[in-house]
Amino acid sequence: MPLLVVGSVALDSVETPTETRDNLLGGSAVYFSFAASFFTPVRLVGVVGDDWPAEHTQLLQTRRIDTAGLEVVPGAKTFRWRGKYFQNMNDRETLEVELNVMHDFSPVVPEEFRRCRYLFLANGCPSTQMKVLHQVPGADLVLADTMDLWIRTQQDQLLDLFKRIDGLVLNDSEAKLLTGEENLVRAGHKVREMGPRFVVIKKGEHGAMFFSKHETYVLPAFPTLQVVDPTGAGDSFAGGMMGYLAEQGNFEPKTLKEAMAYGILVASFTVEDFSLDRLKKINREDLRHRMDQYKKMLSF
Amino acid sequence: MPLLVVGSVALDSVETPTETRDNLLGGSAVYFSFAASFFTPVRLVGVVGDDWPAEHTQLLQTRRIDTAGLEVVPGAKTFRWRGKYFQNMNDRETLEVELNVMHDFSPVVPEEFRRCRYLFLANGCPSTQMKVLHQVPGADLVLADTMDLWIRTQQDQLLDLFKRIDGLVLNDSEAKLLTGEENLVRAGHKVREMGPRFVVIKKGEHGAMFFSKHETYVLPAFPTLQVVDPTGAGDSFAGGMMGYLAEQGNFEPKTLKEAMAYGILVASFTVEDFSLDRLKKINREDLRHRMDQYKKMLSF
Repeated sequence: MPLLVVGSVALDSVETPTETRDNLLGGSAVYFSFAASFFTPVRLVGVVGDDWPAEHTQLLQTRRIDTAGLEVVPGAKTFRWRGKYFQNMNDRETLEVELNVMHDFSPVVPEEFRRCRYLFLANGCPSTQMKVLHQVPGADLVLADTMDLWIRTQQDQLLDLFKRIDGLVLNDSEAKLLTGEENLVRAGHKVREMGPRFVVIKKGEHGAMFFSKHETYVLPAFPTLQVVDPTGAGDSFAGGMMGYLAEQGNFEPKTLKEAMAYGILVASFTVEDFSLDRLKKINREDLRHRMDQYKKMLSF
Repeated sequence: MPLLVVGSVALDSVETPTETRDNLLGGSAVYFSFAASFFTPVRLVGVVGDDWPAEHTQLLQTRRIDTAGLEVVPGAKTFRWRGKYFQNMNDRETLEVELNVMHDFSPVVPEEFRRCRYLFLANGCPSTQMKVLHQVPGADLVLADTMDLWIRTQQDQLLDLFKRIDGLVLNDSEAKLLTGEENLVRAGHKVREMGPRFVVIKKGEHGAMFFSKHETYVLPAFPTLQVVDPTGAGDSFAGGMMGYLAEQGNFEPKTLKEAMAYGILVASFTVEDFSLDRLKKINREDLRHRMDQYKKMLSF
């Protein structure tokens, strides 16, 4: 089943303790799409400037990613993000953001995309996320991501959005910020009580937690020796998770847990190199192999 | 199979963000013994002063804990620790340490304990740990714990010890300090290359990781809503783990993984109240029930 994603498309500059790379293909919708495309066809909606290299669009098109919703604004520049990772590779600092075309991004979902039944609202301004939601009224499953900025500056709009979505994906520090709870189990349930039917808290190198009315669980990250660049791990997680749900065509509790495991595994590949470099080199069979290792690791 | 533990016996004062408690029964050997006693008889070696309440010894004796090795030094005071937990309940600050009888603790293992085949060297000065090891020459399985202080001040003695033990249990920050590695998977293997046949890295609320030559795995913590006092979680983890190994009478890879899971579950109860208060109220059946929930959580 095709999956629709609306979010940022970016050119990133990333500084790690050992290396700096500029002009990398990035953005939440890009990582999400690529990760989801292991499982299902994807429809991408985003915006770029005319500095956007055509080869990036071509790369996405070699996957099952429909870029008809990728608007190119002439005379404008693509969204740019520059960040620096600390020694622990888990914490980072944003050094520079150039919003450029994202400044007044008001996504228009192409007519042919509006019948998608699975929708992901990647991190963005909650009022924009809400506008997208209104354009896809028949969606069966809507997941959204958010960030600290919106929790601090647009909490009312965010809370409105929560009442309209099925699932929310956010990271541990955001869940704590939103609820004032330091215990993540309490925080997860408190976020769920704000509206979403289920909540996923991403814990970076420590995995992810799931909360619904009847279920609470934690799955660990896949232990990887090689963490080169964590950028996009969260979006790849969401893409792997929701891609699998769309492929399976249901979001029963059993499918949701498998999906979360696939999200964790796709993200474990993402961090093994810069940008999409690692994901470009793997296929569904590699994911299946890592899933076997992961399941073995968790059974005793 | 009986299990021997040598380590601290303490009176703790604990400050959490919501409550302060003084004169709590504590110490690494106490938490370890109590946790292990769900599974196997325990022989405890430690030292206290004459301020030590007899009821604490009686409590231990109601379990399968032989306190013949608990020396009471007349005219001296018991080891005391005072600590304060931060809002996140994971980080803490030591406010005060009174070594008292621990200052010149030179453990003598009673003759009748020296034939124990399972030995745990709780956190302590590595040269003292080595002296204990020499008194139990026939041990089949020796596990040890350590702390940042010894890594900083007695690293040579610690490295000597590593060559003589089977397993080392330490926490994430200690593993990073010891190896200079921020990636815990690398850190775990580096520690293992220093001598122990296997290494367990405790990650507090994020569970624990296991490293042997042929295996690397992570198990998450049990998600608990109620974290009242994390003191002793690490020692209860080790006690649950090693108690289960002693009960099973082997340390095959399969048993080690089950044991690590039991360690995680015992620790998940420990943190639900101050001191041993929660552990006093549960039994092996409660552990089995939580194990069922835990296994269900990890299967998909």
